[in-house]
Amino acid sequence: MTAEIAPPDGSDDAQSVGIVQTQFVRLFEPPSILTLESGFQLGPINVAFETYGELSADRDNAIFVCHALTGDAHVAGKHSADSRKSGWWDGLVGPGRALDTSKYFIICANVLGGCQGTTGPSCPHPETGQPYGLRFPFITVGDIVEVHVALVKKLGIDKLLAIVGGSLGGMQVLDWVARYPDMIRSAVCLASAGKLSAQGIAFNAVGRRAITTDPQFQNGDYYGLDPSKYGEVGPRAGLALARMVAHITYLSEASIERKFGRDLQHSDHLAYDLHSETEFKIESYLHYQGKRFIERFDANSYLYLTRAMDYFDLAQRYGSLRNALGQTEARFLITSYHSDWLFPSSQSREIVSALLETHRHVTYLELESVFGHDSFLLEIQQLEELVTPLLRETYRRYRKTH
Amino acid sequence: MTAEIAPPDGSDDAQSVGIVQTQFVRLFEPPSILTLESGFQLGPINVAFETYGELSADRDNAIFVCHALTGDAHVAGKHSADSRKSGWWDGLVGPGRALDTSKYFIICANVLGGCQGTTGPSCPHPETGQPYGLRFPFITVGDIVEVHVALVKKLGIDKLLAIVGGSLGGMQVLDWVARYPDMIRSAVCLASAGKLSAQGIAFNAVGRRAITTDPQFQNGDYYGLDPSKYGEVGPRAGLALARMVAHITYLSEASIERKFGRDLQHSDHLAYDLHSETEFKIESYLHYQGKRFIERFDANSYLYLTRAMDYFDLAQRYGSLRNALGQTEARFLITSYHSDWLFPSSQSREIVSALLETHRHVTYLELESVFGHDSFLLEIQQLEELVTPLLRETYRRYRKTH
Repeated sequence: MTAEIAPPDGSDDAQSVGIVQTQFVRLFEPPSILTLESGFQLGPINVAFETYGELSADRDNAIFVCHALTGDAHVAGKHSADSRKSGWWDGLVGPGRALDTSKYFIICANVLGGCQGTTGPSCPHPETGQPYGLRFPFITVGDIVEVHVALVKKLGIDKLLAIVGGSLGGMQVLDWVARYPDMIRSAVCLASAGKLSAQGIAFNAVGRRAITTDPQFQNGDYYGLDPSKYGEVGPRAGLALARMVAHITYLSEASIERKFGRDLQHSDHLAYDLHSETEFKIESYLHYQGKRFIERFDANSYLYLTRAMDYFDLAQRYGSLRNALGQTEARFLITSYHSDWLFPSSQSREIVSALLETHRHVTYLELESVFGHDSFLLEIQQLEELVTPLLRETYRRYRKTH
Repeated sequence: MTAEIAPPDGSDDAQSVGIVQTQFVRLFEPPSILTLESGFQLGPINVAFETYGELSADRDNAIFVCHALTGDAHVAGKHSADSRKSGWWDGLVGPGRALDTSKYFIICANVLGGCQGTTGPSCPHPETGQPYGLRFPFITVGDIVEVHVALVKKLGIDKLLAIVGGSLGGMQVLDWVARYPDMIRSAVCLASAGKLSAQGIAFNAVGRRAITTDPQFQNGDYYGLDPSKYGEVGPRAGLALARMVAHITYLSEASIERKFGRDLQHSDHLAYDLHSETEFKIESYLHYQGKRFIERFDANSYLYLTRAMDYFDLAQRYGSLRNALGQTEARFLITSYHSDWLFPSSQSREIVSALLETHRHVTYLELESVFGHDSFLLEIQQLEELVTPLLRETYRRYRKTH
């Protein structure tokens, strides 16, 4: 259960978790396969995960981090000493940081249906050995949570000190609390919602249409001989386009204006030329984001995971948000961001209302940030100031030993 | 100069202009061809236009309507008695309506670069007889205005009682005032801006990328043997996608939520099926909008006209908004819409500030509407209440006779 963490190794950042490795476990081996929310069955399921810090002897200091749509298990640290890229929430996780690895045991796993090591549509179907493609069963946020729960139990943990997530990760947090109200001692739900808005569904629909109308999509069977090479084959133009439009929705108008405005990319005067595709900096930036994305993400996973977001509707499933969230003793921290128009504050306030009406313990803040939906990934210090006392207090109340 | 208007013909709407016909004129015949803002030259230029009402003997009652990105010259009335579709601003134009055809002479023309009768990339190049495609020269909002000015002069009109337009039409209004400050007696600019925002450029970039990465785009030479059939050939999937994403930006989050919410299209329960593409009503609606759009619009025109919007920056061209707008004696009416996030009110207020600083006569209202950017097309009554007195007062002050 020891985290795979090497010492910071001369790093100038004493708060880094250092070099980490992704771990793998196989769950839901037949005959104990998972019955999905749709009724379909799936198994075995491989899960890619990382852990940081050490699990206490009483197994009471575990925190599960739920990643967002295109995230992965690699939350913090680096995969090698010469890697230039840290985990996606590196500033939040480490010794002395909000998710303090000198006190807590942090777990993050790649989601079911993803493409970063956990079973998803690019993985071989156990019967045919060929990639699932669109034969992969439909999955929901609840199915994602069930796999995480199985992982946590496999690690010998019955109760979590906290679950933490933003956006689709926040949906997982809410669904987890609804499914296993007694398993959670605190829940941190950032820039999220009890259901995806119609506007959110609309943008997802555009992204999916971009992928499925790309002639290289081939009805999902685009992997060729080596399914791990999905970054080199398939609906690259469509997936890049899906990312471009999604990326706009992650930023605020003000942040785009501030970062790019109407600045030109390569010159100080307008070219009056329709062929120069990347004349404004914002265009160049979006094209770059699209291009980078297709190197790391599978188009089929994008279809399945956006569909899981569309389907998420906690009140519809449980009768009401109150029913869904009123059964737990967990202490909640909910944040929204003033400039986030994809998951507006009104949606967080609906969650908060349901918690207050059922007399749950909740702290809610609408935070000022210019970064739009991406704020939850970027405004680390704001988050640290809120998360640190929540975890300390929750741990103080519930830990069995000193 | 008489408008091509038949009597309402038993219509139950006495305020309709009735049956109208699109007219055509050829301008900028060599050697008097148009020098574009880019320095390129273009001519001859065919212009499709419609007129409603009668020009007064003193030629002092003419109003020019500037259409938006995907509009056309057909503002009001019907093209035939059995047509089910009226012009795009029918509720605003007619006897007794805000643009009162019993008093005023209304003109609207399809924009340069468009695909509804005015010369654009789908038209034959005069030298080769083949469609221009991407050989069509780059055009700006200013070039569009120059063609309209030439049309107005060809109609024997020196001064306009008013110019009216929303969105890209509003940009034309502002550019017209800047270029020909003495030609305009009143200017109505709705849901528009002195420059397109970076976010607006970003959404346009996505739409253009959808078109140009469609394999059927063929670098713009997709017309086949009959260029008028562009609705049946070319980057249909890409153009539909461009329309889908643009359409989302024309609606407010609240109007999407109110109209569609999370309602399903064909059933009352979730299908848990990735293959059913149109499960939510909002998806079905967007796919329908995309499909309908490709029947009436040319992908190359979409590229050129969105680029013209991107380039529009009045302050950059004239040194400041004050310089651009401070030279006219025209009376301004500026409106923005509370729920319009594509052209937010802050952009209209910049225009208003420039007008106030130069002591121009301006009325500004931020109107309440749930319809987002599309409000200027839909909130006819609000508009009528503002436009009617502006025109009456302007006409009273300036007309030469009774």
